[in-house]
Formats: sequence, C-alpha cells, structure tokens
Amino acid sequence: MEKTPYSIFESQLKVRPDDIDMFNHVHNSKYFDYVLAARYDQMAEHYKMPMEHFLEIGYGWVVRTAMVEFKRPLVMGDQITVRTGILTIDPKGCRVQFEIENNRTRKIAADGWFDYVMIDIRTGKGCQVTEEMIRAYSI
Amino acid sequence: MEKTPYSIFESQLKVRPDDIDMFNHVHNSKYFDYVLAARYDQMAEHYKMPMEHFLEIGYGWVVRTAMVEFKRPLVMGDQITVRTGILTIDPKGCRVQFEIENNRTRKIAADGWFDYVMIDIRTGKGCQVTEEMIRAYSI
Amino acid sequence: MEKTPYSIFESQLKVRPDDIDMFNHVHNSKYFDYVLAARYDQMAEHYKMPMEHFLEIGYGWVVRTAMVEFKRPLVMGDQITVRTGILTIDPKGCRVQFEIENNRTRKIAADGWFDYVMIDIRTGKGCQVTEEMIRAYSI
Amino acid sequence: MEKTPYSIFESQLKVRPDDIDMFNHVHNSKYFDYVLAARYDQMAEHYKMPMEHFLEIGYGWVVRTAMVEFKRPLVMGDQITVRTGILTIDPKGCRVQFEIENNRTRKIAADGWFDYVMIDIRTGKGCQVTEEMIRAYSI
Repeated sequence: MEKTPYSIFESQLKVRPDDIDMFNHVHNSKYFDYVLAARYDQMAEHYKMPMEHFLEIGYGWVVRTAMVEFKRPLVMGDQITVRTGILTIDPKGCRVQFEIENNRTRKIAADGWFDYVMIDIRTGKGCQVTEEMIRAYSI
Repeated sequence: MEKTPYSIFESQLKVRPDDIDMFNHVHNSKYFDYVLAARYDQMAEHYKMPMEHFLEIGYGWVVRTAMVEFKRPLVMGDQITVRTGILTIDPKGCRVQFEIENNRTRKIAADGWFDYVMIDIRTGKGCQVTEEMIRAYSI
Repeated sequence: MEKTPYSIFESQLKVRPDDIDMFNHVHNSKYFDYVLAARYDQMAEHYKMPMEHFLEIGYGWVVRTAMVEFKRPLVMGDQITVRTGILTIDPKGCRVQFEIENNRTRKIAADGWFDYVMIDIRTGKGCQVTEEMIRAYSI
Repeated sequence: MEKTPYSIFESQLKVRPDDIDMFNHVHNSKYFDYVLAARYDQMAEHYKMPMEHFLEIGYGWVVRTAMVEFKRPLVMGDQITVRTGILTIDPKGCRVQFEIENNRTRKIAADGWFDYVMIDIRTGKGCQVTEEMIRAYSI
C-alpha cells in the first residue's frame, strides 16, 4: 500500500463456494466484490457514513475506473484481509487503493485502486463531493 | 427446523453488497449460496470431511432438488445465522434442512431443504454414498 | 410442463463463463437466475408488462417459494431454452412452472416452479394482484 | 478501440436481472464477466481455440491485470455489443483491449484492457505461450 496522509482500514472476509470458478480459483470479478464489501464495512465503521446513509439522502458512490492486479490465486476455504485507504480526494471524487492478503499464506493475492465518483441516485449523474464529506473522509 | 436424530450446526455470514438486487434486497439465488457456504464450513468443521477432501478423491456433493421458502427479505448490512442439519441419509444421498435467521431481527428470513447426491467428478455421474461416509455424517 | 389454460413461452439463453463452478458445471443458483431472466423477457414481450413498468409504478414481483429439480448438468458453452408458464394466478400471487432444456442434448436440465407475490417497493410488503393484472397475465 | 495489426471481434450479450445492483445499474464486476464471456465465444469462433480445448490439454488463460473504465451505466433490459482484440502478444502473455457498447444508446458503456497469462491447470503456475499459439492468435 502506498503511504498517504489517510488511514488504512482492514476487513476480514471468507471466500464463499459460489466465488470459485472453473479453474478452482476465486473468480476474477469477485476480488472486485471483496474490495467493495470491505469498503462498505469501513464506510460504516470508520467514517460513520454507511452507504445506506448515502442512499437515503439520494446519493451513491460508484466506481468510475478500476485497476486490479491479480498476483496469486485464492482458493476454496481461504480467509482474507482486505485493506483499503484513500489515496486522493477532492470535489470530483476519490481514489481508493486496496490490497487483499491471503491469511493462510500471508501473501498479497491482489492489489490496485478504484476511482469513485458520487452520483445523484434519481438522475444517475455525477455530482460534487461536498467539503463536509471530504472532511469526513480525511481521517 | 424439524427434529431429527442428527445434529444441527450453525454458521455466521454477512450479506455482501454484490448480493443486493434491484429491489434493495438480497437476491433470491444468494440464499442458496449462503446455505452452500454454511454447509461447506460445517462439512470441514463438524464432520471433518471438507469438500476439498471429496474433490481430491474424485467425488463431489451436488444438489439434486432444492426447496426454498423466502419469508422475509434480507437487506444490506444484515448478518445471518445459517443452520443446517441432515434430515435423512442413505446410500442414494441425503436431505439437508436449513434455516437462515436474520441476526438483526431474530426472525427467520428463509428455510427449506436440499437433496444432495454424490457424483464421480470425472464422469459427472451419481454414485453410492458408502457406509463409512454415512457413519461420518450420522452425528 | 404441466398442461394449463395458460400459454407457455420460451426464451433462449447462453451459459456465461462466470456461471461455471468448481465442478465445471453451471452453479446451482444460476438456474434460478436463468428462469428469472426468461421470465423478465417474457413479461415484456408477451404480457406487455415489463418489470421496469412495475418498478416505475412502485411494485415488484418477488419469489416467495422456489422448487428446483436439477436433472442434468449444464456445462460451458451450452445454450438453453427456458420455458415458463403460469400454473395458477389469483389476487394473492401466482405460481409459475418452468423447464430448462439443453439445446445441445435436447434433454431437460432442470424443472420446477416458483411462487411469486407482488410487493409495494416502498414498504417491501406484499399487496394484492389486481383483477386487471390477473387478466393481463391470463393469456 | 486502439488500432492494431490484430482483428477486432464482437459478441452480442443481454443484461440479466441478476446483473443489476442496488443502484438499479449493472453491477461493476459484471462488466468484467461480459468481456470474459465475449472473449470465450470469440476464442471458439474466430481463433478456433475454445477455452474447453485449453482446459483439456491442461492449460488455462487467466487475467493478471485488469483496467476497466466505467463510462455510462447499463440498466435492466439493455443489450450490448462487446468488442475485443489483441493489443500485444508474446511468450509471456497477451494484452486484450475491449469496449462495451450499449445497443440502445450506441454509446460506449465501458472500455479498458486485460493482461492474460497462460497457466498450467495442475500447478496453477504461469507457463510460456508457444509460437504455435501466438500464430493462432495473430489474426
């Protein structure tokens, strides 16, 4: 993980059988879902701004760009630590870096970053991240 | 859960964001996956016969019939208790009953049963459950 | 498929790689999704009542009970015909029967039925199917 | 799509209800699966080297790095055209570019590229792409 002024949080997850693909590995697109799950938990727990709160007031965070490097396969039964942290944040959105560590091997299974923008749920269009929200995430 | 001579085991799971559908509920087919995940954990932990062990010796348990009753929707952030237990087991297969309890409401979100048969992975055909396996599951 | 006074419609679908599981078969819960996809198409095409229409006016059809019999595995590359038809419909809901035929083998891969109820999206609670809707589906 | 000496192929797909997420959009990780599905079809149809052939001889193509830009959301009922083409290929692997066009709007919903490497299924380790395979893909 790159060093930044922002905190890095971690979540524990366990591979589910429905995540396994024809190669007996966790299917690529599930890594994406693991990071998303971790980020949701961390929004609620650490930033005190759960996604449900955003949805209620009519906003949502959506991914604009995703960069994922798959380093080592995860398999059935694996438990993982997903670390995420803000790299940059401004009124246009934020970049979140992540890494997935395999608890069994203590090696990095994947890492990368996602660019998020905020949307107005009713219109589906992007909107500005307010200063108040930027402050809330700047921990 | 129906009373039987067999044990009932339970597993803890947490709803993932990718489980949520257009109604803002957990998507129906994910209940299926939750039971599957619980059953895998319980095979390893309680029966000491993890699915990986079956796969290595060339066998797999597959679902022949599934009956699921959806009672109350699960939503984003919910944590669940999945209970499963054998209803009947014989050389042709076993019937596993389950229920999913929502930890937030303490109410049953879904229940039902799955009929499993054993297959030979190489041929994909069903095969007999041996007496030894039946004994291992008869706890 | 059971004979009824109601029409039976069919949809064509193709297995996607992300539907394949650790046994190199289509994952059980995906059969559920195939029927759902077929039913959506058929709602729009044959009943002229697409799910989007229901969502806009604040309603949704959700599955209350599902019964699926898995008869023969589907594999990578398979194309399928999904047939569905109403078995019964009344103000409390409807039962839809289905079968999935493998176009490659011309054999039934799975069949069963789903009980649907209508919900008010805002409350998540069940509501009555109106006479007008029952008539629209009674073709 | 970037201009290259290699062909660009296209596949038609339709959004499934189980692809829709809590924002009523196609869930991000499904774009990944759409490209994968298109690539599989194109391997079989255009390169005459279906993934099943690789699996039988003990190899698989796996994604090492994925870069996806989400430009415009896809929604329920959308039909899409997925174009993919090789950007570069050598004994260490290949980079495949893609774009997903929404047939309804004729606009690009997403684009990006995937780096693939070949693995030996038994060991899970990467292996060289042979000259013969490189030739087969160099159309």
